[in-house]
Amino acid sequence: MKIFVVYWHPEPQSFNGAMFRTACETLVGAGHEVKISNLYEMRLDPVSSRKNFTTVKDPNYFKQQIEEMYATERHGFAAEIESEMEKLEWCDLMIWQFPLWWFGLPAVFKGWVDRVFAMGRIYNFENIYETGVFRGKRALLSLTTGGPEDAYRKGGFNGDITAILRPIQRGMLQFVGFDVLAPQIVYAPVRMTEEERKQHLADYARRLGEIARETPIDVGSF
Amino acid sequence: MKIFVVYWHPEPQSFNGAMFRTACETLVGAGHEVKISNLYEMRLDPVSSRKNFTTVKDPNYFKQQIEEMYATERHGFAAEIESEMEKLEWCDLMIWQFPLWWFGLPAVFKGWVDRVFAMGRIYNFENIYETGVFRGKRALLSLTTGGPEDAYRKGGFNGDITAILRPIQRGMLQFVGFDVLAPQIVYAPVRMTEEERKQHLADYARRLGEIARETPIDVGSF
Repeated sequence: MKIFVVYWHPEPQSFNGAMFRTACETLVGAGHEVKISNLYEMRLDPVSSRKNFTTVKDPNYFKQQIEEMYATERHGFAAEIESEMEKLEWCDLMIWQFPLWWFGLPAVFKGWVDRVFAMGRIYNFENIYETGVFRGKRALLSLTTGGPEDAYRKGGFNGDITAILRPIQRGMLQFVGFDVLAPQIVYAPVRMTEEERKQHLADYARRLGEIARETPIDVGSF
Repeated sequence: MKIFVVYWHPEPQSFNGAMFRTACETLVGAGHEVKISNLYEMRLDPVSSRKNFTTVKDPNYFKQQIEEMYATERHGFAAEIESEMEKLEWCDLMIWQFPLWWFGLPAVFKGWVDRVFAMGRIYNFENIYETGVFRGKRALLSLTTGGPEDAYRKGGFNGDITAILRPIQRGMLQFVGFDVLAPQIVYAPVRMTEEERKQHLADYARRLGEIARETPIDVGSF
């Protein structure tokens, strides 16, 4: 398979970093083609602006979706955005590796979505959800939390993780047509022993070795 | 009241910009003290890193929450973060003005939360949700959507807006102790006539004139 792994964490030595490297090594070792976007090393600027584009539709009023549709017709995306779009279009499976911050994506990751998921090229009025541009492709969230697993159950301290992840799994991934695999969640790695962390990496590697055979889950709707 | 208005949109002439200016003018006119953070004009960098801090707890491993707790004890937050914290601590009511992007906050706004809502100073293990640092304060989301109102009902194209906003209203605002007022939502201002947009601004101004008397809503939990 063609697999695209997107990753951000502010500390390369973090457990997120270890999960990212485990995924890349495991998937390459299993014979898959792997492309990555290490948003930390790329120092990706998450701020949407005219620098998303080389073209200008309206110099007097910046409406991002209008500029996106114009750029779609004229190959007008900035090089750093175009290269991300090409990886999205190329892959069969996309993996996002990130720490859950404030019940969602860290800002850099959210900015990657804000800038790359452009109207016209990545979705449009006819191609959305079940008819999305990327239908037939699959996506997997791989994330860590600060709190323990029982904090993320329905009625728990923070509540049901499936509902917490819905803006990402439903609102971003399914919105553009991806089928979603069960999220890989490691709860509170900071509180684990080194041995426990190694076990989680081994479990993740084992899962990824069989990832081609997995079937999508129902992530629910709002 | 002391009111803190936080705002981001990439186009100052946008309807979001108009809502921001309407809020500021109305609230000042009504005799309130108003402080603002115009994240667009401030060119706020949304990326969390060591630049959040003037202090360093561990130079070899960057764990943001550890650095936040250390900075809390030593007045070690960078000036651009400290000034935001002081406005948070000062206000009775906080208003967030933003466009809903990908079922959540735009990256710049999320980065403001990631960087400013620091463990130790803004929340800690004893002070969270009902016992949050900011209990007694109130918060209001004011936002625009691209889609029409019927897309944001339960069973609608995108689904229930209250569930979509829960990571923000429950996971960010209530998490640190704020009571939440009903969100001010203007659906699809891009499809409105100039007259309709003016009416929405007038409605918002009228609401803000009475805002001191409003009572919080139940935003639900996950």
